Amino acid sequence: VGGDKLIRNRIPDVVIQRLITYLRILRDPAMVNEEYISSAQLAHFAGVNSAQVRKDLALFGEFGKQGVGYPVKNLQEELVSILGADRPIGIVIFGVGELGSALARFLTARRKENKEYRFILRALFDENPSMIGKEINGVKVRPLSALDRVEEPQDVGIGIVAVPAAAAQQVVDFAISKGIRGFVNFAPIKLKVPPNVRVQYTDVTLTLEELAFYL
Amino acid sequence: VGGDKLIRNRIPDVVIQRLITYLRILRDPAMVNEEYISSAQLAHFAGVNSAQVRKDLALFGEFGKQGVGYPVKNLQEELVSILGADRPIGIVIFGVGELGSALARFLTARRKENKEYRFILRALFDENPSMIGKEINGVKVRPLSALDRVEEPQDVGIGIVAVPAAAAQQVVDFAISKGIRGFVNFAPIKLKVPPNVRVQYTDVTLTLEELAFYL
Repeated sequence: VGGDKLIRNRIPDVVIQRLITYLRILRDPAMVNEEYISSAQLAHFAGVNSAQVRKDLALFGEFGKQGVGYPVKNLQEELVSILGADRPIGIVIFGVGELGSALARFLTARRKENKEYRFILRALFDENPSMIGKEINGVKVRPLSALDRVEEPQDVGIGIVAVPAAAAQQVVDFAISKGIRGFVNFAPIKLKVPPNVRVQYTDVTLTLEELAFYL
Repeated sequence: VGGDKLIRNRIPDVVIQRLITYLRILRDPAMVNEEYISSAQLAHFAGVNSAQVRKDLALFGEFGKQGVGYPVKNLQEELVSILGADRPIGIVIFGVGELGSALARFLTARRKENKEYRFILRALFDENPSMIGKEINGVKVRPLSALDRVEEPQDVGIGIVAVPAAAAQQVVDFAISKGIRGFVNFAPIKLKVPPNVRVQYTDVTLTLEELAFYL
């Protein structure tokens, strides 16, 4: 496990992103019945060139078969193992407005249609008294003060931040104090976090606004 | 309008992104009752330094008042005008699975709670016969063949791609042939598009997978 950790920390983020993309391509329903996939096909779907695919996958050993390609099932298993992509990860959502609710429905539905979908919605948090006690697909809305100390990522690995910008930093500070180390931020604000905490930014309205500017 | 276009094309993407972020901060409910905002406050929420804020806003004239800050309402109007952020933009969603449905509910709810929310869901498309004819908040699901020729961005400016990876390129090619010039892609595939078409990539599961890798 120590060695694993070492290898992981040495892989650049951009390679990790591509490996995740390869894995998602292999898991796509259209791929399920394919026995082999060529580096050219993988490259096509991932938007890179075949040499890049071969180079990325060669980092971890010899998967491919000359002239046939990569065995889909085998490559999938290898990528899952490299990425640790079979570990269940608990998710909580902060802010149960329209976006938070939509994400809650999305996550619970993914999990329902695929028992192996590893992101498991554990709880919803909102400070609005009229929301507290409500349920979305069986997951209850609680006040922030009900967030327990987090022990393991499968307990709560990631907090999704879907509160207004003005509340986001405070919510994240509190979540960090409870042990959450990963966040997806939908609030239009840059979060200040210590170096051992990671934040990914994503915002549908912002994305639409950016696109719209160029139309 | 020609001059406007010229100025627009000269502003780097990163500045546009920051201007959009400033505008979203000014529009945040917490800001509504404030008369002034300082460059330090704007910088704090946007995650940049105050000098950057002042430099970005100075590009477009003199908004600030020494020692008081920027007048919130005025700066908001200026940014809306610079960004063209008051033009309504029609949206269609391709793929009405869990993600597509959640996005449809999100967009219609935003529009319902704020009549000025400019992204208007026009139609939903899915090739699954069991989906066709269904409605989400009054917007009907149609087969792809029902997509009409697009004339104006307020008609359909942006297509949201929420179909499986294997179908995404084909759907986008068809949408481009009908005149759509902007896409938000949720499918785990890089799209090939001509230079006059823009794509933004966004993918909640991919974001979660990337974060999870580092937990």
